[in-house]
Amino acid sequence: MEGKLKKFGFEVSEKIEKDPPSYSIKGVVSFLNEITNEDDRRLAISLGLGDPSRFKCFRTTAIAEDAVIEAIRSAKFNFYAPTGGIFPARKAIAEYLSNDLHYQLSPEDIYVTVGCKHAMEVTVKVLARPEANILLPRPGFRNYENFANLHHLEFRLFDLLPERGWEVDLDAVEAIADENTIAMVIINPGNPCGSVYSYEHLSKIAETARKLGILVVADEVYGHVVFGSKPFVPMGVFGSTVPVFTLGSISKRWMVPGWRLGWLATSDPTGLLRKCGIADSIKNVLDPAPLSPTFIQAAVPEILQKTTEEFFSKTIDILRAASALCYDKLEEIPSITCPQKAEGSMFVLVKLNLSLLEDIEDDMEFCLKLAKEESLVLLPGVTVGLKNWLRITFAVEQSSLEDGLGRLKSFCERHEKKP
Amino acid sequence: MEGKLKKFGFEVSEKIEKDPPSYSIKGVVSFLNEITNEDDRRLAISLGLGDPSRFKCFRTTAIAEDAVIEAIRSAKFNFYAPTGGIFPARKAIAEYLSNDLHYQLSPEDIYVTVGCKHAMEVTVKVLARPEANILLPRPGFRNYENFANLHHLEFRLFDLLPERGWEVDLDAVEAIADENTIAMVIINPGNPCGSVYSYEHLSKIAETARKLGILVVADEVYGHVVFGSKPFVPMGVFGSTVPVFTLGSISKRWMVPGWRLGWLATSDPTGLLRKCGIADSIKNVLDPAPLSPTFIQAAVPEILQKTTEEFFSKTIDILRAASALCYDKLEEIPSITCPQKAEGSMFVLVKLNLSLLEDIEDDMEFCLKLAKEESLVLLPGVTVGLKNWLRITFAVEQSSLEDGLGRLKSFCERHEKKP
Ligand SMILES: Cc1ncc(COP(=O)(O)O)c(C=O)c1O
Ligand SMILES: Cc1ncc(COP(=O)(O)O)c(C=O)c1O
Repeated sequence: MEGKLKKFGFEVSEKIEKDPPSYSIKGVVSFLNEITNEDDRRLAISLGLGDPSRFKCFRTTAIAEDAVIEAIRSAKFNFYAPTGGIFPARKAIAEYLSNDLHYQLSPEDIYVTVGCKHAMEVTVKVLARPEANILLPRPGFRNYENFANLHHLEFRLFDLLPERGWEVDLDAVEAIADENTIAMVIINPGNPCGSVYSYEHLSKIAETARKLGILVVADEVYGHVVFGSKPFVPMGVFGSTVPVFTLGSISKRWMVPGWRLGWLATSDPTGLLRKCGIADSIKNVLDPAPLSPTFIQAAVPEILQKTTEEFFSKTIDILRAASALCYDKLEEIPSITCPQKAEGSMFVLVKLNLSLLEDIEDDMEFCLKLAKEESLVLLPGVTVGLKNWLRITFAVEQSSLEDGLGRLKSFCERHEKKP
Repeated sequence: MEGKLKKFGFEVSEKIEKDPPSYSIKGVVSFLNEITNEDDRRLAISLGLGDPSRFKCFRTTAIAEDAVIEAIRSAKFNFYAPTGGIFPARKAIAEYLSNDLHYQLSPEDIYVTVGCKHAMEVTVKVLARPEANILLPRPGFRNYENFANLHHLEFRLFDLLPERGWEVDLDAVEAIADENTIAMVIINPGNPCGSVYSYEHLSKIAETARKLGILVVADEVYGHVVFGSKPFVPMGVFGSTVPVFTLGSISKRWMVPGWRLGWLATSDPTGLLRKCGIADSIKNVLDPAPLSPTFIQAAVPEILQKTTEEFFSKTIDILRAASALCYDKLEEIPSITCPQKAEGSMFVLVKLNLSLLEDIEDDMEFCLKLAKEESLVLLPGVTVGLKNWLRITFAVEQSSLEDGLGRLKSFCERHEKKP
């Protein structure tokens, strides 16, 4: 038996230090968490992950809790849900998304998934045809690259431009696309950048995609999580210019990532995707795939329709203040540059000025030493595609954020080159 | 854009009648449901699927509902769960399974999945090495074959023997195994057979697997759902003879398939799997995969530890009576033979004596006509690998079962050959 397992490549892998880029965000953050200084009397602070659900100030609305509880208590939703989700959930998501569009999505345009991450995987699987390639943003959300590798879809990276509010470098998109390019991904509001795209920029993206004959995959998991001057405009607004796969979930706006309820929506007002039988392709991928529990799906209409403006604006106000605090405190640190105050999502991406630091070679070393010396976890930019940058999550309790940014400042001061 | 999508094979598939064997159980049952006679004043009855959760008599225990509700209300479980599941859930599942073993599983032996179906897919992915093959039972649960196809794992079928209570034909197993065989799957209690394997038979399976140097994958999703003379014996009891992957969920014993909470457990008291780094292989597969919602995981300890014997025995009593009713009524139908009264799961598998029927060519035609003429849905055996058999679910409300079996009898009488 043992011989046979070995023959098929089952082996204890020596835990060699892998190249950081192959690490996942989860992997890097938990590694950094582990090495935080045990002798440090201060609590470790993590500004590494985008999961604010543990903080009291980000507790989800009672509307959402009650909706799920009611669905359980009714005992009407213990059955196996159909592929794509139960009708009331699909209908409610279609209506929710249509609120921001000038046309109506139908329930058949919606596929309920196990969170947005699952919608990402479904999208990649649907598009993974031999020879095809997909264009992904850099910096970006590494999971797209991982899923593309896993499902054998070639990917090519285009840059986002920090000096232009992390807009897509559309010249780069045109340069790397070819006749086998099937889609491009945008993340708006942006992870890891904290950017929010204007109507004009989204319109240009749509025009470029139309010209190239490619789909737009719009990751809008942070949809409506905006607190700057620009409103959130969903990519689906440009659905008549170019068909859009819209990916989303309740994870971020409702602060319940553990509930695993997301969606893939096809925004296709011209019927182009329908004509190509995209629905069958999506169903084929979803049929064997895991499903979101039926009673959570059953709660979706209540959650999407009944959540009050008050809940949303409370969260947004906290995030706006946190983003501003973060920006101001970072201004005080010469070895860190923040090209753009975050206007959406929960993150800001900042540049390390390594020439001002001694004994630190790159972002990974920075984060390792920071974790050890200050029990503070930040995400090295290399995990999101930008070496020598840092991603900072500000969606934490204010006291932790202040404390964390203070530690960051002392760390940088201590490691600054002496003149 | 349209041209490009067509180039990559996106096309509207004409809904041609596919060969029945390529249908999924869900697909066949919903097709049959659709063709039930609309003009029939009687309600359609489905004895097609194994989902009793819609029936009042199978409502899950309040313990389970309360446990989930409490986890939601606490607002402590809205965060992203780690790969493999949260520790309290893994620990509780380890303890639950160890109750039936003479050794202790540790929490690290347990991986929480999105239902047992997901545990099946994870297992197939872990074992899908180039050249490797897996042995599957016929009749069986078609999803294993589908996952094997999807993940490029060769499969070979061995027969179960109706005349021996659907035991595994171990000679056949030895005949089809070769040096590339990595595992064999057993389903106990059996779907679609309603069989329960004795200690002796399981011990022989273990010996055969050991001799062949292969793993046993034990699908125990119906674990403890037994109501005949034999107790349920988990395959893990033979873990020292051969390492076992045990797959299970709360779907069946707690009648909550829509909750999507399952597990993969490695029963490996000799440490052989550990030595081969199986944990890393499983984690690699699980890392990008969908997760069960954290608050459902959080409810697992309460559900597994607190559910009363009363709840279980009430369900088991209903199933025992239903199985007996089913057996007795089928005895009255000459064109149907029931080789074995069901002693576990929710199904019985019966043989069609086509020579006694006129104008019916096979099981599929039988089921099509039955749906049209009697608004009764049964599963044609071809979907579980046995042509000209039928799978009947008896886990329905008693009145529906009686009514359904009555319709089956009239149908057969009407179609019997006249002497
Ligand atoms: C850009 C982006 N897309 C998708 C996801 C996954 O979201 P979900 O929790 O809904 O799976 C995340 C999570 O952080 C994200 O940042
Ligand atoms: C033999 C067998 N295995 C696995 C499953 C899947 O169970 P779950 O609902 O836990 O995914 C089923 C469901 O009917 C089954 O019959």
